[in-house]
Amino acid sequence: MLGMADLVLALDFGGTKLAAAVAERGATAWRSVERSLLPRGVDAAMAYAEMIRLARGVLSGERPAAIGVSFNGPVDPLAGMVRVSFQVPGWEAVPLAECLTAEFDAPAQIENDANAAALGEARYGAGRGAESVLYLTVSTGVGGGVVLAGQLRRGHHGLAGEIGHLCVEPDGPRCACGRRGCLEALASGPAIARHAREALVAHTERPSRLRALPDAALDARAVAEAAAQGDALAWEVLEGAAIALGRGIGSAANVLDPQRVILGGGVTHAGERYWSVVRSVAQATALAGDTLEIVPAALGDEAPLWGAVAGSGSAGAGARERERGERGA
Amino acid sequence: MLGMADLVLALDFGGTKLAAAVAERGATAWRSVERSLLPRGVDAAMAYAEMIRLARGVLSGERPAAIGVSFNGPVDPLAGMVRVSFQVPGWEAVPLAECLTAEFDAPAQIENDANAAALGEARYGAGRGAESVLYLTVSTGVGGGVVLAGQLRRGHHGLAGEIGHLCVEPDGPRCACGRRGCLEALASGPAIARHAREALVAHTERPSRLRALPDAALDARAVAEAAAQGDALAWEVLEGAAIALGRGIGSAANVLDPQRVILGGGVTHAGERYWSVVRSVAQATALAGDTLEIVPAALGDEAPLWGAVAGSGSAGAGARERERGERGA
Repeated sequence: MLGMADLVLALDFGGTKLAAAVAERGATAWRSVERSLLPRGVDAAMAYAEMIRLARGVLSGERPAAIGVSFNGPVDPLAGMVRVSFQVPGWEAVPLAECLTAEFDAPAQIENDANAAALGEARYGAGRGAESVLYLTVSTGVGGGVVLAGQLRRGHHGLAGEIGHLCVEPDGPRCACGRRGCLEALASGPAIARHAREALVAHTERPSRLRALPDAALDARAVAEAAAQGDALAWEVLEGAAIALGRGIGSAANVLDPQRVILGGGVTHAGERYWSVVRSVAQATALAGDTLEIVPAALGDEAPLWGAVAGSGSAGAGARERERGERGA
Repeated sequence: MLGMADLVLALDFGGTKLAAAVAERGATAWRSVERSLLPRGVDAAMAYAEMIRLARGVLSGERPAAIGVSFNGPVDPLAGMVRVSFQVPGWEAVPLAECLTAEFDAPAQIENDANAAALGEARYGAGRGAESVLYLTVSTGVGGGVVLAGQLRRGHHGLAGEIGHLCVEPDGPRCACGRRGCLEALASGPAIARHAREALVAHTERPSRLRALPDAALDARAVAEAAAQGDALAWEVLEGAAIALGRGIGSAANVLDPQRVILGGGVTHAGERYWSVVRSVAQATALAGDTLEIVPAALGDEAPLWGAVAGSGSAGAGARERERGERGA
């Protein structure tokens, strides 16, 4: 190692923004962070070049001992490959870990952002001290991750923690994945907005301050704000989403039995009343009852970056190093 | 160690029967097995004494190196304690591992029977070669267990793998646990029998060979047999149970992402048509699709005994040994 401390470079490739940060191994605060918004129309090569610029900035000439990466889209963590980005074109089958290793001469570990955020919250955030964590993020979609004994459980097909696709209402609305009644189709931000629109149309006789909003402004946040101001229709819509989320959490808990469930994502800022329904339905559904801990995420936007730190220098990177060694031998 | 081989004593305390067996560590066949039916009205002390008699029989004077126990009811595996039996009175808070260690001078590890069967199938049965296994047993109830990398995931509250209490139909029938729409209330043997009775009453105009049966004979097996003989009403009842089971399996798979799902228990002998619905609904619900393997259990009644072998000499027993050492020091 060069330098005085074991430095970890953490990179977060989001759908619309990038972040790079550096921390000393074992530290709980960044030594340096830089962020950048991606302009519309950007492609993978431009995003990569911008990220390298940010990374060189936070490193200030030092060499990292390890690199951790959170990527907004499906990845193959063991191969170190991006599979695809649904936001930025050109990421198909990019060997991102190998590129970064060539760039900075350090092993790199990549994870999708939900898994990275789960690992970040488990090790550095609201999951500290818990033996097992189920992390959910509720925003445009419902994603999540599973951390057992401090290690990510990725699953056999890389699909563990996909609790957005628990079937919580067999005859429920169609989900973006094509299935019916998925948690995501009932509890995500777009699902809340859609239910609000449907309720306004179905109950033209009922007053609601949501009627005054232009259609483009009718989102989950607007529903939560109206509910907080005593709008009954808005609260019923929000309550339905909270009930579905609670059922999904409780069902998932009956499979995994985690010590703690951590909820992040924009929708979970919908207020105390929303939280109280989520918690009570989840605990009523879970056999563990009110011994199942359900807490808000603590790291906000930085969860994937801290997860990148936690994942750096782990199994995937090691496996690739070993493979290279074996191929070379 | 006395004797030539590392002997494991495996004990299965069932609700109505006992089994004891001996195998050499690493073997895949028993050296000796003995079984006994429990008479009605038996209590814990009588069951224990009978088990000790069976165990002495299979041991033929040799000393086991380790003892594994499957128990039909909730246990505390780390403390080695039985919590309660719902079938045999007097088991409340019995320190079973300690009793057996005193009896045979070997460390003892106890598990509840669903977890033991899961571990047995994973290591010795239909789960061999799989990195991760979700095991379900569908009979009077719906129980199960989770085995990751060959190790039982018991869960933080000892409730992992309780997929009988996944909520698969929020407004569904009441479950024995008090909740609504649990998988167990839709897919267990008693649930199938109850739905058949309800269908016969609700559709008096429909013919069904189930009408010829005395009420006591109308069980899940009779429904499966009638369905196999072309009885449409019986098949609809069975199909409903298969759909619920498939949904539960698919939802659980989206949380855990196991490589393989293993189905055991009497109800899973309901025929190829039942299996085909379970499999297709589970794979349609799971994001992993038809790469999710769903296979029948291989060990039948012996799964808990093999699980006892697999669990013997594991973490729980070791923890107790260490604790004793620390207390003694």
